[in-house]
Amino acid sequence: MSDAPKANAAVGQSGGPTGVINASLAGVIEEVCKHSEIKNLYGAVHAVEGIVKEQFIDLKNISINDLEGIASCSSSALGSSRDKPDEKYCHKIFEAFKKRNIRYFFYIGGNDSANTAHIVNLMAAEVGYEMRAFHIPKTIDNDLLVTDHCPGYGTAAKFVACALMGDDLDNRALPGVKIDVIMGRNAGFLTAAAALGKQRDDDGPHLIYMPEKSLTMEQFCADVDAVYKKHGRCVIAVSEGITDIDSETWTQKVVKTKEKDAHGNVQLSGTGALADFLSDQVKKTLKIKRVRADTFGYLQRSFVGFQSQVDVDEARACGREAVKFSLSEQSGSVAMKRTGEGNKYGVEIFCTELRNVAEGTKSMPAEYINKDGNGVTDAFIKYASPLTGELPKTYYLGNYPKV
Amino acid sequence: MSDAPKANAAVGQSGGPTGVINASLAGVIEEVCKHSEIKNLYGAVHAVEGIVKEQFIDLKNISINDLEGIASCSSSALGSSRDKPDEKYCHKIFEAFKKRNIRYFFYIGGNDSANTAHIVNLMAAEVGYEMRAFHIPKTIDNDLLVTDHCPGYGTAAKFVACALMGDDLDNRALPGVKIDVIMGRNAGFLTAAAALGKQRDDDGPHLIYMPEKSLTMEQFCADVDAVYKKHGRCVIAVSEGITDIDSETWTQKVVKTKEKDAHGNVQLSGTGALADFLSDQVKKTLKIKRVRADTFGYLQRSFVGFQSQVDVDEARACGREAVKFSLSEQSGSVAMKRTGEGNKYGVEIFCTELRNVAEGTKSMPAEYINKDGNGVTDAFIKYASPLTGELPKTYYLGNYPKV
Repeated sequence: MSDAPKANAAVGQSGGPTGVINASLAGVIEEVCKHSEIKNLYGAVHAVEGIVKEQFIDLKNISINDLEGIASCSSSALGSSRDKPDEKYCHKIFEAFKKRNIRYFFYIGGNDSANTAHIVNLMAAEVGYEMRAFHIPKTIDNDLLVTDHCPGYGTAAKFVACALMGDDLDNRALPGVKIDVIMGRNAGFLTAAAALGKQRDDDGPHLIYMPEKSLTMEQFCADVDAVYKKHGRCVIAVSEGITDIDSETWTQKVVKTKEKDAHGNVQLSGTGALADFLSDQVKKTLKIKRVRADTFGYLQRSFVGFQSQVDVDEARACGREAVKFSLSEQSGSVAMKRTGEGNKYGVEIFCTELRNVAEGTKSMPAEYINKDGNGVTDAFIKYASPLTGELPKTYYLGNYPKV
Repeated sequence: MSDAPKANAAVGQSGGPTGVINASLAGVIEEVCKHSEIKNLYGAVHAVEGIVKEQFIDLKNISINDLEGIASCSSSALGSSRDKPDEKYCHKIFEAFKKRNIRYFFYIGGNDSANTAHIVNLMAAEVGYEMRAFHIPKTIDNDLLVTDHCPGYGTAAKFVACALMGDDLDNRALPGVKIDVIMGRNAGFLTAAAALGKQRDDDGPHLIYMPEKSLTMEQFCADVDAVYKKHGRCVIAVSEGITDIDSETWTQKVVKTKEKDAHGNVQLSGTGALADFLSDQVKKTLKIKRVRADTFGYLQRSFVGFQSQVDVDEARACGREAVKFSLSEQSGSVAMKRTGEGNKYGVEIFCTELRNVAEGTKSMPAEYINKDGNGVTDAFIKYASPLTGELPKTYYLGNYPKV
């Protein structure tokens, strides 16, 4: 018998939904039901907002059909919140916990969520309230510290890879320049995933720009020009967070220019603004006629029916392990360590201190970006390929001899 | 033994690629191989461009692996073209055919492609060159005349439906207004497909705007306001082709305004322009804080690994039937007639005259659009549901009682 308190638990889902944050929730629910130490499991509706407003769902009584259903369904089944709790907010959370004898707190989210769990945990220690707080990682950006990769990334990466595979075939059929703007303001992992479906030397994306490397418009146009001259077409994946050499993002520059032009009448907070701007630059500078641009937007995190099974399994395991850790540890963030590559790919789940994850985020390591700053390396492909599961094979007939 | 000529055949894929235009090509290839009347099958590289430049692939010699591969892969495996042949261009096509003893012409595409086949066919008749021309339908817009529905629509509709299902769950998790701009300039079928995944009364999309009904900004904002007040959130599907009451599209209006504001410096040919504009309108008029907009763009026709199996099967059957028709008929366009609904859904493939398809396109019938012009009817759902195949079920926990 462990010395874990016999008490209630709460779980919440925070920040932007992903394709597998529900799998982590399912993991928490199923594991809690196996341990008599935890009596009730309160699901916080809309994350911390639900805690302070005391809006909970009794998760031990949801149907098994709903448990398996949410595990295979994208988005945050409990509802989410963008609130970033400060000390005062955390105090309210803590008060709500005391009121319901909640002594286990599982919070699924990014590094801000780790920080919330961390602060609540410190408060409990300060007043001598026995409580255990655990963070379960999720992001599509893959930017959390310590863990090898994040639940949520594999599914989003699969979407982006398949989008680019299709886009490249489309561009072969009707050649021109195609620009795709991909999520990830500070970390280029998701944009880099655009390369995961490449199967031939001349497959696109031919250029990939991540926020870790600054980019001048001159360089961008020169790169596009070179690819277009070689292949007669060019497919480009660009992070929404790419920056100019003055470190300002191109999106900021574009929005500012447009606002100024319109004397305040045009407010382009602009999901489509960067894509349209880059498209205009290529048209104007290189005089290429067929230039198209798409901004993938929320589909990258919300599309249903297209999960990476590896990602689902890992996310669910992270949820289960968080509960197991909570029976022997005081607090922590769940993280994954890779135990093998290729056919032997696997992960070991471990527990790290909350502050290790709360205190920052990570970017693409330099060895994953090519020396020209316009593509990824084999090291990145080796790193990310196991996370999406097998991708479809692409076919076209243009490589057959002409008769 | 039919009186079909013993000669060669040519096949091409025209216009925007779809998820299943390759399945139709595969159908043509496999069927041609069964009939000794047709000796060689020339695949025109980049459609009519390949014919006039005499760039062909010997399709009887592609590997069976490639045949099945392309059948399950989106885009146009032979390459496509946006050329719209006039009489002079058709004459060049005809000359290229005569040179290679091509007396069977299969052309996969929209109504312009039916027209090309029609003109070439008339020219052949005029000079007494025995030739047979057949059109095989494809569009994601579903706007071809005669046929019950078009190959290509079901797969695009499945993508749009799943995108909206995910978007609605995302919007439940983080409530606000979400606007999705969907392809289809003149026909609202694809935008209407946004409703196909709705599973509960309060599921989004709550508003659907198709180009068949004009829309004022006042009405748009009033509709959004009403939904937002009722549900605390609002998910909207809008066709890129929606028009104001003066019949001008809102996209045209937006682009013009922006060009004027910027004194010619801002050229928003703008894939994202309409979405950003609508988003701004809602923010300004209704003072709603969280408003997001996405433009789905080319993903709707190009995404890989997400075909509707019904669509694949029908597209392939249309390709096969075109070849069979060509052995007994002089010319025609392949079309589908629905033979049953629900579990008994099925189609019968028949042949109609080329000019019946070449001469125009169709829009959403009035009975598929609700009386307020902001949603679809049950009749539309009944019509379109069989075409996507079964959609994933969505799950969330917000409908459980709070404790």
